[in-house]
Amino acid sequence: MFSANTYQKRRKDLCKVIKKGMVLLPGNMPVPMNYPSNHLRFRQDSSFLYYCGLDYPNLNLVIDADSGESTLFGDDLTVSDIVWEGERTSIQELAKMAGIDHFLQNKELPNSVQSKKESIHYLPQYRADQKSFINRFFNGNGRGSSKKLIQAVIRQRSIKSEEEIIEIEEGLVITAEMHKLAMMLTRPGTKEQTVVGQIEGFALSYGRRMAYPVIFSVRGEILHNNDYFNTMKTGQLVLNDSGAESPLHYASDITRTFPVDGQFNNRQKAIYNIVHEMQSEAFKYCEPGKSYKDAHLKAASIAVEGLKARGLMKGNVKDAVDAGAHALFFPHGLGHMLGLDVHDMEGLGEDLVGYDDKKDRSDQFGLAYLRLAKKLEPGFVLTVEPGIYFIPHLIDQWKADKKHINFINYDALEDYRNFGGIRIEDNIVITKDGYRILGPPIPKTIEEIETLMQENNG
Amino acid sequence: MFSANTYQKRRKDLCKVIKKGMVLLPGNMPVPMNYPSNHLRFRQDSSFLYYCGLDYPNLNLVIDADSGESTLFGDDLTVSDIVWEGERTSIQELAKMAGIDHFLQNKELPNSVQSKKESIHYLPQYRADQKSFINRFFNGNGRGSSKKLIQAVIRQRSIKSEEEIIEIEEGLVITAEMHKLAMMLTRPGTKEQTVVGQIEGFALSYGRRMAYPVIFSVRGEILHNNDYFNTMKTGQLVLNDSGAESPLHYASDITRTFPVDGQFNNRQKAIYNIVHEMQSEAFKYCEPGKSYKDAHLKAASIAVEGLKARGLMKGNVKDAVDAGAHALFFPHGLGHMLGLDVHDMEGLGEDLVGYDDKKDRSDQFGLAYLRLAKKLEPGFVLTVEPGIYFIPHLIDQWKADKKHINFINYDALEDYRNFGGIRIEDNIVITKDGYRILGPPIPKTIEEIETLMQENNG
Repeated sequence: MFSANTYQKRRKDLCKVIKKGMVLLPGNMPVPMNYPSNHLRFRQDSSFLYYCGLDYPNLNLVIDADSGESTLFGDDLTVSDIVWEGERTSIQELAKMAGIDHFLQNKELPNSVQSKKESIHYLPQYRADQKSFINRFFNGNGRGSSKKLIQAVIRQRSIKSEEEIIEIEEGLVITAEMHKLAMMLTRPGTKEQTVVGQIEGFALSYGRRMAYPVIFSVRGEILHNNDYFNTMKTGQLVLNDSGAESPLHYASDITRTFPVDGQFNNRQKAIYNIVHEMQSEAFKYCEPGKSYKDAHLKAASIAVEGLKARGLMKGNVKDAVDAGAHALFFPHGLGHMLGLDVHDMEGLGEDLVGYDDKKDRSDQFGLAYLRLAKKLEPGFVLTVEPGIYFIPHLIDQWKADKKHINFINYDALEDYRNFGGIRIEDNIVITKDGYRILGPPIPKTIEEIETLMQENNG
Repeated sequence: MFSANTYQKRRKDLCKVIKKGMVLLPGNMPVPMNYPSNHLRFRQDSSFLYYCGLDYPNLNLVIDADSGESTLFGDDLTVSDIVWEGERTSIQELAKMAGIDHFLQNKELPNSVQSKKESIHYLPQYRADQKSFINRFFNGNGRGSSKKLIQAVIRQRSIKSEEEIIEIEEGLVITAEMHKLAMMLTRPGTKEQTVVGQIEGFALSYGRRMAYPVIFSVRGEILHNNDYFNTMKTGQLVLNDSGAESPLHYASDITRTFPVDGQFNNRQKAIYNIVHEMQSEAFKYCEPGKSYKDAHLKAASIAVEGLKARGLMKGNVKDAVDAGAHALFFPHGLGHMLGLDVHDMEGLGEDLVGYDDKKDRSDQFGLAYLRLAKKLEPGFVLTVEPGIYFIPHLIDQWKADKKHINFINYDALEDYRNFGGIRIEDNIVITKDGYRILGPPIPKTIEEIETLMQENNG
């Protein structure tokens, strides 16, 4: 945990914005895996962690915006619980750790806020048990989540403090080792699953969980691919999108794409270097005041230029990007906010987290899926993750629809149906006058990757 | 998956018992970790797996007991889903894999059973999303779970078929390696967490998940201990209670206790051998027609004899066991059913799973927590897991209450406050005329454990 002061200040700052009424932050409960007492590994709610840091199940936090005081609700163990579960930190002690003024048992929660029930702000809930809890709490008559609270929380959580940056970099230390380990373990004949197990196990041996399900696949063009059934073969590329949480549950989110046999062929090199250049050029837009949508569009134009040079696209680059033709190859956004959630605060609403104004949103394929389009500010932590993919399904669909035939050479694409996909992703913080890549370096250039892999396979 | 025939036969056998009405088996849904689209690793419901084997989220199975026919409900992907998620097996194909007669989209579920809604049987639900689903399905007017269905499911799932036994043994192959790996990695100065990460990672590299949260601790006396913060020290014992799932999600559940430095001291040897003898003697009760409660009581009497010989207990052995004095050291049951759940079918109710008659249940401390007291039958798969623990909290409580002072030498216990706990656990199947230990052998005697550890630490 950070110090009690950190959490006290965050709650105080929140009260200044909310001004009146109560804020109810329910902590997460354990989730049964296959029967009531066999639980999936516990993950605390991120906003709960932000405002008090307490990484234990079945807690609730109430902040009184009028008085500025907070109360922690929980359940102390009975003596007979202790026999089975061992001693646990008392609610009193937990409250103290987080600088919380008062503490009560959970059963006292409804009565203790009864008189102010009308004024309770709460966030959107994403788990069924929390939805039920809120529903019961308001006897089915809740006003819905509070936009005022959502906006205040997004405002606070968007700007990372120095201690949060340090924490994110601690997550990246393990993540960097995971990525190097994956390169060292990968060779023709190895199963994807074997590598995934080893990198997850490596993180687990430090007590770290994955911030999101690992994507590790020779079919990198399937963007949300969580299967690991393939045996990797010479000539294939493998895409590794994975990141561990820090001790305090800050995410990291890194992607590297590398050749199964440790050596890029010429075609892979060419596409890889386009993606690398997309990232380098996008970085130049990473400074306060610049819009991340422009960074995305710059990356898109680099993609079109590169693909033109390979004979896969044609026509005027700006026109192609304006029309959205690049999205056949680069259908997702350049990046997203990163913090206590890997898509930071996604549960609070993408419009509010990622856009300065909702009407900035495009409905063009590709552009519609930008998770971040905002003007950048110092303290934003975000991913920069351009990619080029050859998605047979999408190619067939667009070709059949004769979509963007002025910009895309569908015939030339036939040769690339089994290419897969390449993505390169790093995590950065926006500084006063630019950006800084977070965490230790991880092999990224063709030379760096080939050197690491050949040293270990040789 | 097993063959379609296997699942067809199971459903047919179920219909023979249920005879009239519909059986609704909701499959599990994905559970959000920290926002709606970031999911915890999916685990299918065990009864759903039993009756159709389909290991995919968002499916529902309806069995019409009158006609004997089944319908699978699910959601096929849209073309745009396929771009992001890749192709997925269609509902039609899934139905075929499980030998299910009909298939429909989920949205058709309410209408398709409307006319028989009064006759729908369902099982107790353990996840909040499934509880909400059932609640909405019946507009808040469900009749509650069906005892007839619960009893029929318990009856079927209790008797493991030959192919289920083979599957459980496949889980145990990985579990055995996990346990040997833990012994090889353990040495003074190593953190518990390091070993836990490595054994989980080993299982993950074969695509296997843990059947339950690993217990790995030098504080083996804390029975439900899922912390791994300790650095292990010379002279300590470490208790490893862990098991991987098989590919089809059958649990294994093995415990070994071993010295951190690879060598038991004399006191550890003495207590270890009592526990080992508790298990050997309990095995003699493992045959059809014998009650597992008697096996438990036999193990308890061996514990009392052994602890008497060490000067920790006194008085008449039978009287001590009748009074429940042994439960200070052996407070849990000898074992439980094992199958698709590690505590098999615990979510369906311990009374029905573990007891021939509810009035067999004792409320004596220790005996009250038997998970299995039934007469054994061929095809039962169960754990045999005696233990002796020195639980400071419980000792203090009993001593203060002057509990069983005729049987317990509290003064002599002072020396054992830091001893920890020892448990030895194996998984067996009840055969026609006895039992068989499942899975490959895992070092268990003092000699076997010391040999393995010294070979690897030497």
